[in-house]
Amino acid sequence: MAKPLALTMGEPAGIGGELTLLAWRESQRDSVPTFFAVDDARRLSDLAARLDWQVAVREIQSPEQAEEIFPNALPVWPLAVSEEVTLGKPDAATASSVIASIEHAVGAVKTGRAGAVVTNPIQKSALAAGGFNHPGHTEFLAALDEAPHPPVMMLAIDELKVVPVTIHLPLRQVADQLTTAAIVHGVTVTAAALTRDFGIASPRIAVSGLNPHAGEGGLLGHEEETIIEPAIEALVDQGYQVSGPYPADSLFHEAARRGYDVAICMYHDQALIPLKTLDYHNGVNVTLGLSFIRTSPDHGTALDIAGRGTADPRSLLAALRMAARMAEQRAH
Amino acid sequence: MAKPLALTMGEPAGIGGELTLLAWRESQRDSVPTFFAVDDARRLSDLAARLDWQVAVREIQSPEQAEEIFPNALPVWPLAVSEEVTLGKPDAATASSVIASIEHAVGAVKTGRAGAVVTNPIQKSALAAGGFNHPGHTEFLAALDEAPHPPVMMLAIDELKVVPVTIHLPLRQVADQLTTAAIVHGVTVTAAALTRDFGIASPRIAVSGLNPHAGEGGLLGHEEETIIEPAIEALVDQGYQVSGPYPADSLFHEAARRGYDVAICMYHDQALIPLKTLDYHNGVNVTLGLSFIRTSPDHGTALDIAGRGTADPRSLLAALRMAARMAEQRAH
Repeated sequence: MAKPLALTMGEPAGIGGELTLLAWRESQRDSVPTFFAVDDARRLSDLAARLDWQVAVREIQSPEQAEEIFPNALPVWPLAVSEEVTLGKPDAATASSVIASIEHAVGAVKTGRAGAVVTNPIQKSALAAGGFNHPGHTEFLAALDEAPHPPVMMLAIDELKVVPVTIHLPLRQVADQLTTAAIVHGVTVTAAALTRDFGIASPRIAVSGLNPHAGEGGLLGHEEETIIEPAIEALVDQGYQVSGPYPADSLFHEAARRGYDVAICMYHDQALIPLKTLDYHNGVNVTLGLSFIRTSPDHGTALDIAGRGTADPRSLLAALRMAARMAEQRAH
Repeated sequence: MAKPLALTMGEPAGIGGELTLLAWRESQRDSVPTFFAVDDARRLSDLAARLDWQVAVREIQSPEQAEEIFPNALPVWPLAVSEEVTLGKPDAATASSVIASIEHAVGAVKTGRAGAVVTNPIQKSALAAGGFNHPGHTEFLAALDEAPHPPVMMLAIDELKVVPVTIHLPLRQVADQLTTAAIVHGVTVTAAALTRDFGIASPRIAVSGLNPHAGEGGLLGHEEETIIEPAIEALVDQGYQVSGPYPADSLFHEAARRGYDVAICMYHDQALIPLKTLDYHNGVNVTLGLSFIRTSPDHGTALDIAGRGTADPRSLLAALRMAARMAEQRAH
């Protein structure tokens, strides 16, 4: 039997709680992989009552109980949130609970009691005020994992998987921050994960250019020649099925997508524009290169709509389903 | 009766000739607006024979004859290409004919004998070797038009219209080259054209950010605050329906697209990635801000496949159809 997924609380002032409730509600209508929330059971049942949603919330003593409870109630591996939560207003006082939820989920997956970690969005500013000294969620997970190399972020929808080599940088810094080593690292981590967790024996990897028309032979920039092509050559020499650099505007239409399993992109919007254009609601953020499987929705805490019951659970549901498929693949 | 469209020859060593033949062939099966080729009739009939395509090519003495001829033969307003053409090998010796075709087409539309100019792709390197001293097709058209302001390039498919404010620049130069004045110019020219040629009385114009998450309040770049927002404010003050800056990755999904008539983008791939992801084959390049209507396919001369008969005429057909709709709108 597949192990249950561990779903973190995320920022309690955001939409994470209602997404957790909605994901469990969906399991009453459609197939959703078994998960347990690492959360405060009372806050979730209060939230369900406030929204007038029929969700039974039941505390479990161990992850192993999730399977039995899940058909009838949302299983919660309990975690007390000591402070009162005001929806829409993150408070540094809850930071320790947010962090504990992540730690417990990672503990469960690393001790073999959960199949994967799925994380609700966190609010970095509130955590920083509470003493959290990691640049983000993924870096914290890497630290908990004692990962030897930086993890790699992949975004996935049914039609497309993309990996941005540089991520949260002002556009003017991208060309200077891009390195051959980062491209090589991105490809090697991605290729290993596609084989291990997606069952693709020999992944076909397309690498985009940085400049318009992939530099048009140097007329529109030189990073293709100086940074990207050396990475591709080194990877091909190592036996990877890597090709490019391709003009980014011609890389994402339907016929082009059939030519590769993942596109390695040079910057945030180059990766995210095609993905979110094709499917805005079902994107999954997958962290590659950790010892365990971790997925998350590709959106934030949405403080402005927290507690209204209008949050869209599709991305979280996609993250749960992808984590379950990856765990099943890895268990084979 | 609608005036015929003037279709230029473009680079004779490229796929322009077979695209012209294919566009006319399509008119035998489906509705295609009446056009005449400003071209060498012999080279077109030789090409049709070589490809074993049944296309009658008939010279016309004036654009006015195109309407009568078009149902039965491809009307060609003749232009001699003095030199022998080798498909796939552009030759500076044909530059004067390529230029003359554009000049004749512009002459026809400016004297009211054609409804619009539709251009086949040119090969700038061959024209430069032949003494052509304009950076590109559009700049040459602007010079012929004695246009007072630089024209604006819009790319259009059924689902989306985009205008890149900067175009053929290395990515590392984009942030420094972007100006408030260029955004204001792009919006004002685009708004006027959408009203005049697309019948949109009060166009809704969305402006993208430059940086990931549109700068995230300055964390990921400052050009939104220093360059883009001042442009939007100035335009709103002038009564334009302009909004933004929007995170580019959230601007192009189906629901977002319903919120605007055109997206003004900060750089080439930001505009072209979503457009070509959604529809790779039917993109039309529309030049706004000239005194006449000009469209073209959004691809190049494809020298590598010229003469094989495998070129895809969808973009040219879309350019012809869009030009005809724009001309009809303008004539109202």
